[in-house]
Amino acid sequence: MQLPPRVDVREVGMRDGLQLEDPVPLEAKLEMLEALVATGVQRIEVTSFVSPKAVPALADADQVAAALGRYEGVHFSALVANLRGAQRAVDAGIPHLEYVVSAADSHSRANAGRPTSEAAEAIGAIAEVSHAAGGSLEVIIATAWDCPFDGRTDPSRTLDVVATAVAAGADQLCLGDTIGTVTPRRTVDLLEAVRAAAPGLPLGAHFHDTRGTGQANALAAVLAGVTQLDASVGGLGGCPFAPGASGNIATEELVYWLDDSGVETGIDLDLVLAAAAVTERAVEHPLPSSLYRAGGASRPRGEFRP
Amino acid sequence: MQLPPRVDVREVGMRDGLQLEDPVPLEAKLEMLEALVATGVQRIEVTSFVSPKAVPALADADQVAAALGRYEGVHFSALVANLRGAQRAVDAGIPHLEYVVSAADSHSRANAGRPTSEAAEAIGAIAEVSHAAGGSLEVIIATAWDCPFDGRTDPSRTLDVVATAVAAGADQLCLGDTIGTVTPRRTVDLLEAVRAAAPGLPLGAHFHDTRGTGQANALAAVLAGVTQLDASVGGLGGCPFAPGASGNIATEELVYWLDDSGVETGIDLDLVLAAAAVTERAVEHPLPSSLYRAGGASRPRGEFRP
Repeated sequence: MQLPPRVDVREVGMRDGLQLEDPVPLEAKLEMLEALVATGVQRIEVTSFVSPKAVPALADADQVAAALGRYEGVHFSALVANLRGAQRAVDAGIPHLEYVVSAADSHSRANAGRPTSEAAEAIGAIAEVSHAAGGSLEVIIATAWDCPFDGRTDPSRTLDVVATAVAAGADQLCLGDTIGTVTPRRTVDLLEAVRAAAPGLPLGAHFHDTRGTGQANALAAVLAGVTQLDASVGGLGGCPFAPGASGNIATEELVYWLDDSGVETGIDLDLVLAAAAVTERAVEHPLPSSLYRAGGASRPRGEFRP
Repeated sequence: MQLPPRVDVREVGMRDGLQLEDPVPLEAKLEMLEALVATGVQRIEVTSFVSPKAVPALADADQVAAALGRYEGVHFSALVANLRGAQRAVDAGIPHLEYVVSAADSHSRANAGRPTSEAAEAIGAIAEVSHAAGGSLEVIIATAWDCPFDGRTDPSRTLDVVATAVAAGADQLCLGDTIGTVTPRRTVDLLEAVRAAAPGLPLGAHFHDTRGTGQANALAAVLAGVTQLDASVGGLGGCPFAPGASGNIATEELVYWLDDSGVETGIDLDLVLAAAAVTERAVEHPLPSSLYRAGGASRPRGEFRP
């Protein structure tokens, strides 16, 4: 099995993980940030600059941004949904932006209030705002594979967004399996098509573990040469015990198998588990990560038979 | 990505899944069997013939065996832990046996009351019992990768068991990740070493999803050419909400990604989900499978953001 020497994990628990939670007090959120920085992870998506009405859990984006100055050597980024959000993020001191465009029209309308083509048109202006502030713009293509309303997303729709992003000056791309339905072969097929269409741009992938296939997709992506993966501490994101649970792949599970397979991440697994404990206290409910629930990698227990 | 045209899934929910549960009434167990046969799965591990004191949940092995005659075209097998169990299974009408040998001494002593070498010595006699009844013997090597007491299992210990099994007339081999600690690279390395040591024997793998890596390991195994995989309906096996949860990989999650990746299994996913519902009623607690909890593959829900 040909694995790369290193995979670059982005921690998205503070944004994708927290956004559907009841709002967590700023102090607890900053403890979570502190614990995440301590893990050694080099990229953290810290918040999103979107309407506080739509996402009350991230209404404190400015205050979170104000706390980042104390940390060195970590690439902090924020998600934005439009030009106004981009300007807010930059004004708050976060020049590295992620702008989400849904490849499926129905999801784009539901999530951003406009069809894919209109959402994609804004890429150029957002890239300018980011670049003017010394930052970078990553375009995250949501519903890249599947849409909860439209079903399978035609690959040409995703590739159209890629072409627009390239032309508009995006610095990086990421494909999102928004509803956790993709599987290994389709993971690889679309990632390879996007890489062929945008050979110069770094390409990442964002998986949810909704159907238990998230880590298998991550493996498929890594085997296909994609070395930038999103993950969320504790598998936070969506309620694990409700129908439709939709947590991100768990950072500790990803780091565990990468580490154990000889792939460097720069992340300390025990410190991710410690950060998961901090996160669990912050959100006040059990986290879905199997590894976390099992008590960690290095502490297998005795309750088993063959 | 090079995937094989077909993967042969063995359903182990009735044995590995139920063995740690509170005993399920025979009638409910037979409903579960009926639902599993209906899925189209062609191999089912139905019970084990072990001490009812050690495994009270499977004390009705004879009665389960008596119910198998009504089903045609399914390869039923039973797990045994020694020669006496093998004779019991054959007498009950199940000639296809799985005999477990732990590659790690400490686990072998804890699980079978004797070290690996003594457990392996019994393979020949058990093979004879099975063959005399017109059956076959699969040797399942438990703790093939890792042991909860001894840590990493030296590959030479697993290969020693393989050599003994080959010499003693075993018909098939299976490597068990007993405590759910293995990861993709080590999965492939050991499977390839075993295949090289026993090129003539069919080789399967048995993964637990304790640390969220089960389906990734399954993908790694399939990519390495292993096309026989164990899985458990609903991910049954161990309590999902307790520390140390140790369920098998979920049949529906495995079938979901294989199907969606173009790999045939002969198993109907909707009928596996139906069997999971029957199983959940039988064990009277929620099943750990994420796909089952999410409400099935074809019914993505709306509670998500990018």
